[in-house]
Amino acid sequence: MHFTAETSSNGVVERNFTLGDVTGLLWSPASGSEPAPLVLMAHGGGQHKRAPGILGRAQRFVTACGFHVASLDAPGHGDRPRTAADEQHIAVLRQAQAAGEPLGPVVVEIHKDLAARAVPEWRATLDALQALPEIGADGPVGFWGIMQGTGIGVPLTAVEPRIAAAVFGCLGHESLTEAAAQITVPIEFLLQWDDEHVERQSGLALFDAFASKEKSLHANAGGHVDVPRFEVDSATRFFARHLGQVGSF
Amino acid sequence: MHFTAETSSNGVVERNFTLGDVTGLLWSPASGSEPAPLVLMAHGGGQHKRAPGILGRAQRFVTACGFHVASLDAPGHGDRPRTAADEQHIAVLRQAQAAGEPLGPVVVEIHKDLAARAVPEWRATLDALQALPEIGADGPVGFWGIMQGTGIGVPLTAVEPRIAAAVFGCLGHESLTEAAAQITVPIEFLLQWDDEHVERQSGLALFDAFASKEKSLHANAGGHVDVPRFEVDSATRFFARHLGQVGSF
Repeated sequence: MHFTAETSSNGVVERNFTLGDVTGLLWSPASGSEPAPLVLMAHGGGQHKRAPGILGRAQRFVTACGFHVASLDAPGHGDRPRTAADEQHIAVLRQAQAAGEPLGPVVVEIHKDLAARAVPEWRATLDALQALPEIGADGPVGFWGIMQGTGIGVPLTAVEPRIAAAVFGCLGHESLTEAAAQITVPIEFLLQWDDEHVERQSGLALFDAFASKEKSLHANAGGHVDVPRFEVDSATRFFARHLGQVGSF
Repeated sequence: MHFTAETSSNGVVERNFTLGDVTGLLWSPASGSEPAPLVLMAHGGGQHKRAPGILGRAQRFVTACGFHVASLDAPGHGDRPRTAADEQHIAVLRQAQAAGEPLGPVVVEIHKDLAARAVPEWRATLDALQALPEIGADGPVGFWGIMQGTGIGVPLTAVEPRIAAAVFGCLGHESLTEAAAQITVPIEFLLQWDDEHVERQSGLALFDAFASKEKSLHANAGGHVDVPRFEVDSATRFFARHLGQVGSF
């Protein structure tokens, strides 16, 4: 893991890093040297590691809870080169969008391909992050990712025992059911009740599939991109409950 | 409205009151004389105005938000005499319980009868409470009631324009759909995913029926009585957002 740039503002240190071909960001509290919990964040389709919905939540998790937060560019996203497969994904998505089709069914194969490539990257990144003294190998790890972040995060969490709590949502397809059934850690699952891209029943079915004893579905009125701002607070408290809050908020 | 007793502890003043035949409780902040928002709380079936689930939340709403909170004994409940109809309700419920039947379908007629009697009582109580200088006629009003409290609260909120936000849940029957469709204020709706008394689809259908632009379903793993403790925090923040928080928490 190579750190390539560092900035700091409002009590948050932001560091760019690379790990092999993977480009990522690590946000940390500007003060405090004791090992602190880590939250992994996976962005949505077509977005990148510093998309507004990632950046805002990451800063919140750091300042409210004292956590470290890591975000990776998904394969073919952000600062990473696109393969022929990635170009094909984009072409398929543009075609569906142009035809006004719901994207839910279209993204299934894309997510399967991305997850196959991204899960090993996330695990290698987690190894590298836990080798940092400010994180350490013993601290709890959370995962946050909705939409494509769920398409990658559910398979990741199913095989990665270090993830102790996860926020997923805004997605539902049957190819994820088997992985969800292997997950037993606490889950907060977001669903947009009037999502134009995700069929309500498929989202409910994915929530139903998690084997977790503690799981909460937060279904909010509104479309795909209308996740309410108060869900940021809710995710913050969810991680504070399960990873152990460092700061006060 | 006659106040019949008053106690005070941990910053909360608790006053018993009667209004005609109705017996109720009003919890208020021990300090502060400015008019503050009011939350109405309706208990579950077979419970009473000071049941633990009511008392704990009421104290929390007062201490965290600076609100006043009022709770009424439902008709035939708590300190109120039972009519022949109330005795009949109890007999029907005991029979279903003894037979191990889900109670959801059984309570439909009971709730209809109770709502017809309780809605006018709640409206008269609200008139009397708003005549108190520490509450006033202009402040926002919230409603909290799950299970039987939803059976009464949905018809109440449908006809009572002073209620500006409501928490409902753990109930779902078609007789409430029409009233729910008249409700447009923000709603937080609790659902127990593995509820042995409320069919999941009927709960989802009731949530779906609300006409509110802002509505959030919180479905949690677990049975009828397993509503997680963190939902108390969530309801507190919900009311703080919509009624305007007075204190800090």
